[in-house]
Amino acid sequence: MAQKPSIPKGTRDFSPHEMMRRQYIFDTIRRVFRTYGFAPLETPSMENLSTLLGKYGDEGDKLLFKILNSGDYAAKLSSEELMQASKICEKGLRYDLTVPFARYVVQHNNELTFPFKRYQIQPVWRADRPQKGRYREFYQCDVDVIGTHSLLCEVELVEIVEQVFKALGIRVQLKMNNRKILFGIAETIGHADKMTDITVAIDKLDKIGLENVKNELLERGLDAEAIAKLQPILEMSGTNSEKLDLLEGILSASETGLKGVGEMRTIFGHIAEAGLDLDVQLDLSLARGLNYYTGAIFEVKALDFEIGSISGGGRYDDLTGIFGLKGLSGVGISFGADRIYDVMVGLDLFPEEVNFSTRVLFVNLGEEEQAASLKLLRELRSEHIPSEIYPEQAKMKKQMEYANRRDVPYVVIIGSQELGENAATVKDMRSGEQQKVAFADFKAYFTDK
Amino acid sequence: MAQKPSIPKGTRDFSPHEMMRRQYIFDTIRRVFRTYGFAPLETPSMENLSTLLGKYGDEGDKLLFKILNSGDYAAKLSSEELMQASKICEKGLRYDLTVPFARYVVQHNNELTFPFKRYQIQPVWRADRPQKGRYREFYQCDVDVIGTHSLLCEVELVEIVEQVFKALGIRVQLKMNNRKILFGIAETIGHADKMTDITVAIDKLDKIGLENVKNELLERGLDAEAIAKLQPILEMSGTNSEKLDLLEGILSASETGLKGVGEMRTIFGHIAEAGLDLDVQLDLSLARGLNYYTGAIFEVKALDFEIGSISGGGRYDDLTGIFGLKGLSGVGISFGADRIYDVMVGLDLFPEEVNFSTRVLFVNLGEEEQAASLKLLRELRSEHIPSEIYPEQAKMKKQMEYANRRDVPYVVIIGSQELGENAATVKDMRSGEQQKVAFADFKAYFTDK
Repeated sequence: MAQKPSIPKGTRDFSPHEMMRRQYIFDTIRRVFRTYGFAPLETPSMENLSTLLGKYGDEGDKLLFKILNSGDYAAKLSSEELMQASKICEKGLRYDLTVPFARYVVQHNNELTFPFKRYQIQPVWRADRPQKGRYREFYQCDVDVIGTHSLLCEVELVEIVEQVFKALGIRVQLKMNNRKILFGIAETIGHADKMTDITVAIDKLDKIGLENVKNELLERGLDAEAIAKLQPILEMSGTNSEKLDLLEGILSASETGLKGVGEMRTIFGHIAEAGLDLDVQLDLSLARGLNYYTGAIFEVKALDFEIGSISGGGRYDDLTGIFGLKGLSGVGISFGADRIYDVMVGLDLFPEEVNFSTRVLFVNLGEEEQAASLKLLRELRSEHIPSEIYPEQAKMKKQMEYANRRDVPYVVIIGSQELGENAATVKDMRSGEQQKVAFADFKAYFTDK
Repeated sequence: MAQKPSIPKGTRDFSPHEMMRRQYIFDTIRRVFRTYGFAPLETPSMENLSTLLGKYGDEGDKLLFKILNSGDYAAKLSSEELMQASKICEKGLRYDLTVPFARYVVQHNNELTFPFKRYQIQPVWRADRPQKGRYREFYQCDVDVIGTHSLLCEVELVEIVEQVFKALGIRVQLKMNNRKILFGIAETIGHADKMTDITVAIDKLDKIGLENVKNELLERGLDAEAIAKLQPILEMSGTNSEKLDLLEGILSASETGLKGVGEMRTIFGHIAEAGLDLDVQLDLSLARGLNYYTGAIFEVKALDFEIGSISGGGRYDDLTGIFGLKGLSGVGISFGADRIYDVMVGLDLFPEEVNFSTRVLFVNLGEEEQAASLKLLRELRSEHIPSEIYPEQAKMKKQMEYANRRDVPYVVIIGSQELGENAATVKDMRSGEQQKVAFADFKAYFTDK
């Protein structure tokens, strides 16, 4: 026998059982995106390397999957040239959906209608070291509006978060912050130049605690006085509105900081009006890694399951600048399909119908029985009820095992007795109960269920 | 300004307008697949090169996209080694869905329940020279049953063809043939060894005509006597059943040929019983390129639009043998999404609702007006009606242009007058008609539409 086939490290096959669950997640997310007026977009899996390189930092450049030029390129190159990946590769696999989206917007700038509301659900690839929960191929689900500063967009994304997780049955908390407030804080404590150091450190507040954050801030060059000024902000508690009141006082000398406070007031005001069934918390320790955010930032955590954030995003003012188009502001959020999947498996949240691909299986007991079964089968299929007949006249035991292993909820048995009675035996595989259903009532029996 | 961004040759961005149409095609195909009890499967975009190489012929090996090993591999290699793609690449992008499916079945043999009915809709990549209608990244939609010889599977695929194209509104003809009949013909004319030459030549009957086919057969080493014996078969006409009667006589000395005739009788018998609304023709000139087919073969053509085949497939008896698992018979069919798309654009078959991503746009005329609009907007969204508000209080003209360019069918205007009357103005953008709808009746107005 040939060598047992395998797949590359960090990649996955998705079995029918997994696929049905994944499709349920994607379909739910997609339906909510569509309801909010976002339109689908897809970009190619490969981009020119020039589009990708330099966009994700030095580390990111290393993690890009590069595609070898096709054709007889190698013969023309010296060995020194061959050593450089850039000579033998012009294309690379998409690393995220954001850079291709920015590239698309710049390339199709003249055809697009702004504000441009798009969603994109596609796989991305990273040559990362594979480990539990980290794959080399995984899906991202991004939704963005680009071309407007309106805070209604932030509110819309919050509503989308509420709708998606309500539909999936996951209880979540949405944490929000604002990069302008973070800048205001840095400015107020006299370290406007150290905003990145400050945000990187306070981003760890949850994980390493206040004292360690203070130590890290010292290491990053902040003086004790500045850290003392920062402390009340890190320890701030109360409602969102109370926090914003406090911040308004603290940041009174920072124009940017006050602008951030104002933005959050507007956003929280709209959220309150919308009467969302969602816990939204202003969390000043939320910084999010990416440096391109310039306004509101979001992060969603599952309340009943321990796993990192399952969704996140924010406002950026210069996404397309890297491709030469300045001044387009946008805001977006990304849903982490793999983690959402893990939460739903962990909390057993998938509806029962997501577990089977076929709802009704007809066993196959002979030529005449098969003919009668095929007739009824066509009636069910005309109603789009997923159904099938066992294709061979195999032993009953084998056919029932097939039904069991495929989690088919209803098995229909038509033997000679049933033929004589013009009625099928319908077995509910979960309860084990059997029932006779007249051929004439058969379709209605399943469509009414 | 930076260089205008572009994408690699032979790849495509799919704009929202194109994506909505593509999703309509994929959703339709997927719904039919599901109705017939097929379950979804996805395999990784990259496979080990050892899985892919040698599976598509020498030409295919050249057309595989190879992915450069990540990490610091190059430093350890000599320049001679660097010249060999196999040293610097261990992974390649999927070339079709069939080989990964075979690899999956062998790898997961022990977990699978046979017959295994799966569908797979994913992109594939070929380093082909790009030209009109030929891309380097394109989607395949495959549906297969593996692990049974039952001809009910062939019948099921024919029904799927009927259902998919009926749902899409494309009138088609299904041509069928059987590799066993083709072998029987080769055997009968005394050239069982030349079956491939014979089928390659007669596959061209439609394109180059009878005389040229005869010349090609001569060139391929058939003698005049054999060609004379072949002629009545090539010129055969009549109903499927008449053709099968004739063949039964002609092929009476070929066991395999008669078996093929019998298979087609069974398949056509079931098709007749099913009362399909589909023109199914036995076409002895149909050979299909791939040599692994061993029984029935299928090809679908659009009746009202000139383009190659839009769907095709057949029965294979040894798909998984290449990976060491013998004796699994299967049958499958593939739908060509790009050509189906072109047919539907050409014949203007997309339903109107596929043209817009947003059904209702609220213009935004001021703070108070916006608050009233947001309230009604949430009512529509609670009914999953794709709808949005223009996020800025821009000029009316700009907002109406936005609605026009996005093909939004209904625009809702709430100005100070409407606020006073507690009624919105609803403009039908296609007819130009306007109507006042009371806020209280607003949701019902759109859900009833």
